[in-house]
Amino acid sequence: MSGTDASAPELPPTQHRILLARRPVGLLTAEDFIFEHDAPLPNLEEGEALMRNVYLSMDATARTWLNRGEGYLPAVEIGEVVRSSSIGQIVATRCDAYEVADLVYSLSGWSEYGICKDDVFTTKLDPDTPLRAMMSVFGATGAAAYFGLLDIGKPQEGETVLVSAAAGATGSLVGQIAKIHGCRVVGFAGSDEKCAWVVEELGFDACINHRAPNLDLVAALKEHCPKRVDVYYDNVGGSILDAALGALAMHGRVVLCGAISAYNDQGRPPGPSNYLNLIARRGRMQGFITLDYWDRFDECFAALRAWADQGKLRWREQLVDGLDNAPDALNMLFTGENTGKVIVQVAPEH
Amino acid sequence: MSGTDASAPELPPTQHRILLARRPVGLLTAEDFIFEHDAPLPNLEEGEALMRNVYLSMDATARTWLNRGEGYLPAVEIGEVVRSSSIGQIVATRCDAYEVADLVYSLSGWSEYGICKDDVFTTKLDPDTPLRAMMSVFGATGAAAYFGLLDIGKPQEGETVLVSAAAGATGSLVGQIAKIHGCRVVGFAGSDEKCAWVVEELGFDACINHRAPNLDLVAALKEHCPKRVDVYYDNVGGSILDAALGALAMHGRVVLCGAISAYNDQGRPPGPSNYLNLIARRGRMQGFITLDYWDRFDECFAALRAWADQGKLRWREQLVDGLDNAPDALNMLFTGENTGKVIVQVAPEH
Repeated sequence: MSGTDASAPELPPTQHRILLARRPVGLLTAEDFIFEHDAPLPNLEEGEALMRNVYLSMDATARTWLNRGEGYLPAVEIGEVVRSSSIGQIVATRCDAYEVADLVYSLSGWSEYGICKDDVFTTKLDPDTPLRAMMSVFGATGAAAYFGLLDIGKPQEGETVLVSAAAGATGSLVGQIAKIHGCRVVGFAGSDEKCAWVVEELGFDACINHRAPNLDLVAALKEHCPKRVDVYYDNVGGSILDAALGALAMHGRVVLCGAISAYNDQGRPPGPSNYLNLIARRGRMQGFITLDYWDRFDECFAALRAWADQGKLRWREQLVDGLDNAPDALNMLFTGENTGKVIVQVAPEH
Repeated sequence: MSGTDASAPELPPTQHRILLARRPVGLLTAEDFIFEHDAPLPNLEEGEALMRNVYLSMDATARTWLNRGEGYLPAVEIGEVVRSSSIGQIVATRCDAYEVADLVYSLSGWSEYGICKDDVFTTKLDPDTPLRAMMSVFGATGAAAYFGLLDIGKPQEGETVLVSAAAGATGSLVGQIAKIHGCRVVGFAGSDEKCAWVVEELGFDACINHRAPNLDLVAALKEHCPKRVDVYYDNVGGSILDAALGALAMHGRVVLCGAISAYNDQGRPPGPSNYLNLIARRGRMQGFITLDYWDRFDECFAALRAWADQGKLRWREQLVDGLDNAPDALNMLFTGENTGKVIVQVAPEH
């Protein structure tokens, strides 16, 4: 390895990493990946730094990168390291922006060591940052909740905000931020336990178990959103998006963050049949990408920290140990096993 | 009849009107209506005026009023006069806003005589208004094109604007207004003849015949919208909306005006599967109702008149004679027989 910093720590000759073996169908299986236990460490080009990953963030959007076709980022190609947000420490550098021992939040992937550059995908962290909280609230997850709700949804005091995957990392923050803004907040979650957590711990006004047998979505929304839905923050798509569109209030807004219900499907996702209600209700449905708000992350994290300090924000982390468990950890977002943020620990913090 | 103006013209003892007999399925048939040839003239309550209809406007939205369920207006009930925009002359009045002989644009319905009030549904017209042009361009149709495109779509010079039902009353104006604003304009229309009219007479840059055999929608959009679609003005829904969403440019806007392809269906319309592209492209899909812009109609009509005077706006009217032909005339919007505005003439202008 050439051009590494003189103060760099001893690096192992090889690393462990996970490559995409084929396009997954539905939930991930071990056969979709190549688990390389003796892969070379990457060579650093000028402008690059080597980070040792500590935590990998499990995000639903990462599942879409494994499918064919370009979304807001190119698809991960067969044979490439699986792309993932991560937090780690710089261990070698040929980039002026980073010094050895710096903590960074980047997009280095399912590997022990990854490359980062001085770009929009990489953020240098304060040395005293609590790393897991950085993943679950003071990072991209918190920014998705903050900008999606406030900038796209624009909730007003007294309005009704509905959020799906309410016990998930993003949805749980969305609802709490909406409460802070004086809204009535109703969630969807996938079990009675999750619903209880969302209402009792996070302070939502109500939470609908969307897996309850014989659930009548329309009736449930009517009961819990008697003034209809002013803002719907959508993480799931499918029948819940459709029902929310049907319950939209006049001038209602639908914030499209993701579509967990569709990401595992091979075919095209079902479109929301009730989209025509956007005409009758003069509604707006709008998508966003958290990275577009890069230049306003400071504002977002300052607000989130202030609310956390005031005891107004709670979050949960679900830690999964070991890089090899990353596929199973990502699956948890789709099977609904998780509550809060799923994080894979690749190495000890120190 | 009580309380009519002393100067009122002689009124016939009965009138001809068309009532809804049952909920239509698909295209309208004679059995869906009761053709009453000896119906009473309505009694005027205080605040009401009686208008003698001259022209009825055929609008796709009127088909939705015949279905069950409330949209932006309540459904027409079985046994009620079919609701329709109309232009006519006041023949009796108990409303201070109108005098006998006034010309008005209202929502009186498929009848020789209808009621209008001093409300948002009724506009008093200049005595020298060309009545048919009022239906085709200087009325609700023009306002739908103007506000939908400019207020919701917000096209910028050099952007690509796509519009469906481009040979229809609204679409043909949308495209011309977009050209006036310096956009590349591409249409969808249902025959080669319509496409030729749209390109050669109206000045669109291209027009795709969506009924062409073996049409590859995706390829056609790629060819004619090489920089993708910044604004899509949707009158049809269905597969064209889906393809347009797939071709959306970054920060693209979809203006939902209507969904001709779905209005005749009994079942729920297909939702646009490509809605997820609103995330990847940071797009916005938004509906509107022309009546909401009521307080800005003067601005709109002044602009449309100025463009017409400058020779920048063209339109076509397709006149259908006789109230009894209203169902067939409305069907033309869905079979694609019309080019431009379909108007039913109920009585001579003078």
